[in-house]
Amino acid sequence: MGEFELIQHYFASQASVRDDVELGIGDDCALLNIPAGECLAVTTDSLVSGIHFFADIDPFALGHKVLAVNLSDLAAMGAYPRWVSLAITLPEANESWLAEFARGFHALATKHNVALIGGDTTRGPLSVTVSAKGTVPARQALRRSGAKAGDAVYISGSLGAAALAVQQRIHNLHIPDDALQTCQQRMDYPQPRCELGLALRDIASSALDLSDGLSGDLMHILRASGVAAEIELSTLPVDPAVVQSVTPEQALQLALGGGDDYELCFTVPAEHENRLHELATSLTLPLTRIGAITAGTPHITWYHQGKPVELHINGWEHFHHGETGKTS
Amino acid sequence: MGEFELIQHYFASQASVRDDVELGIGDDCALLNIPAGECLAVTTDSLVSGIHFFADIDPFALGHKVLAVNLSDLAAMGAYPRWVSLAITLPEANESWLAEFARGFHALATKHNVALIGGDTTRGPLSVTVSAKGTVPARQALRRSGAKAGDAVYISGSLGAAALAVQQRIHNLHIPDDALQTCQQRMDYPQPRCELGLALRDIASSALDLSDGLSGDLMHILRASGVAAEIELSTLPVDPAVVQSVTPEQALQLALGGGDDYELCFTVPAEHENRLHELATSLTLPLTRIGAITAGTPHITWYHQGKPVELHINGWEHFHHGETGKTS
Repeated sequence: MGEFELIQHYFASQASVRDDVELGIGDDCALLNIPAGECLAVTTDSLVSGIHFFADIDPFALGHKVLAVNLSDLAAMGAYPRWVSLAITLPEANESWLAEFARGFHALATKHNVALIGGDTTRGPLSVTVSAKGTVPARQALRRSGAKAGDAVYISGSLGAAALAVQQRIHNLHIPDDALQTCQQRMDYPQPRCELGLALRDIASSALDLSDGLSGDLMHILRASGVAAEIELSTLPVDPAVVQSVTPEQALQLALGGGDDYELCFTVPAEHENRLHELATSLTLPLTRIGAITAGTPHITWYHQGKPVELHINGWEHFHHGETGKTS
Repeated sequence: MGEFELIQHYFASQASVRDDVELGIGDDCALLNIPAGECLAVTTDSLVSGIHFFADIDPFALGHKVLAVNLSDLAAMGAYPRWVSLAITLPEANESWLAEFARGFHALATKHNVALIGGDTTRGPLSVTVSAKGTVPARQALRRSGAKAGDAVYISGSLGAAALAVQQRIHNLHIPDDALQTCQQRMDYPQPRCELGLALRDIASSALDLSDGLSGDLMHILRASGVAAEIELSTLPVDPAVVQSVTPEQALQLALGGGDDYELCFTVPAEHENRLHELATSLTLPLTRIGAITAGTPHITWYHQGKPVELHINGWEHFHHGETGKTS
């Protein structure tokens, strides 16, 4: 057995067990049972060294993050997370590095009860690809195309902190220690909003996860739904660690164009809005109304305290914009 | 839209359409309909430049090959191929290279009617990861664990040609032109045995695809099934291009330990053997009986014209052995 085969066995030995896995790691394919009446939801995301993470990233954080960004896509679809495949390419079989990576990966997998059902380990430049699979009844799936004029626009959690950590690292910015720690935590350990996604099945009319920055990501909903949006900037839940560390203009750029937030952005018909407060409480997760969907060609009108404002969003510098083309 | 996003749209625009795709490329996840009573079969395989293929590979061939090796795993499971995700990492958005890659990928996808349902394109060192998905009723799946004493051992097609092309490239061997061409074709354009896999659902007791070489791969069946095997070397369908190009000893090493054949190896209970001749004819694909399963601890006894022989299989030099650890 080669060293890379050993790696796979190492991962496999720690994999969670689920009743819906008919046949797990160790054959030509895994065999998985889909509940009757549900669709399979699939997403694939790669993280590449130097593009999506700094080469010296804590391997525990990388194991967490590559799974988190994939589970975030399932959450944004309202899908119940079930299974993941993991393909790793790495320069050498560094045992302690791998043990930490596996520990980070399995900690999050255990938290969300997803089973590792296969993968591939290869020698090469460091990159990791996860394909995450879940299920959702077709009519309950949170598509990008369901937003309607009159719906409210909401986002979960706070924005901009992960992007500030990236900028700090590149430009060696002066940031208060505690704020920096918060931002680095957000950069390295995004929390997929799986519970929120499931709860939104009956509430939201559309949803997606924020990976590239609110301004660009919201446009995906608007284009898919054929609607416009009015967003009130003063309501944006910019992370306090960002607010205390940079100018208001910089904070706005990070919140709108920075990316890496992995929060959910979703639209809610008026008749369901009252259920959101309850939900925010039960999940102990802020859910903030930031504007409304309007009729019109897809575009965003920005307001500041009720007055329309012009915005040129560049997210400061785009660490990875233009470097990836994600389609699912 | 960045150049890498354009790439994804380019791939997406050429994707096949299938009725079982509830929602394709362009949302957070793809949504797929699984036929009632069937399992999802999933496999993931990466091909990395310098490990699985030479860096100067024809991009058309690479597009074909990365899909072929994944469909081969579905075939080995008896699964009906339906959907694939494609994650590409590449150093630059070279348009003509990508167009050829996409052409090779889509040509095979169209042949087997599989739909591209998502993916990710990232700047970085060249590698491609495909996750292929199909379906199969659980009780009809061709597992590695079903071989029983008395079953015959069969393989499809011929062995050793792809491995010879690899060795020729590394060691600059002298090989007749026409044989070399045949071997290169086998190396670059493996043909996934999907039709055979489907037909074997009712016939074979176990199956896998030959990626690392018969001697090692057959052991996977023996270990999973808790049985032994007796193999008659004179019956091995060594590719004629190999037979005419190297010594008999070298030919044997390539056929047993060379790898990259992507033929199916399967076991057949005696009562079903008569259906194989018919099947070979209808598929115009040789299906060769090379031995039998016996009771005993997992090992292979090699025979040459009826007499037991000792074999030390090293596959010449192992181009990628020990470099990968595949678990599904």
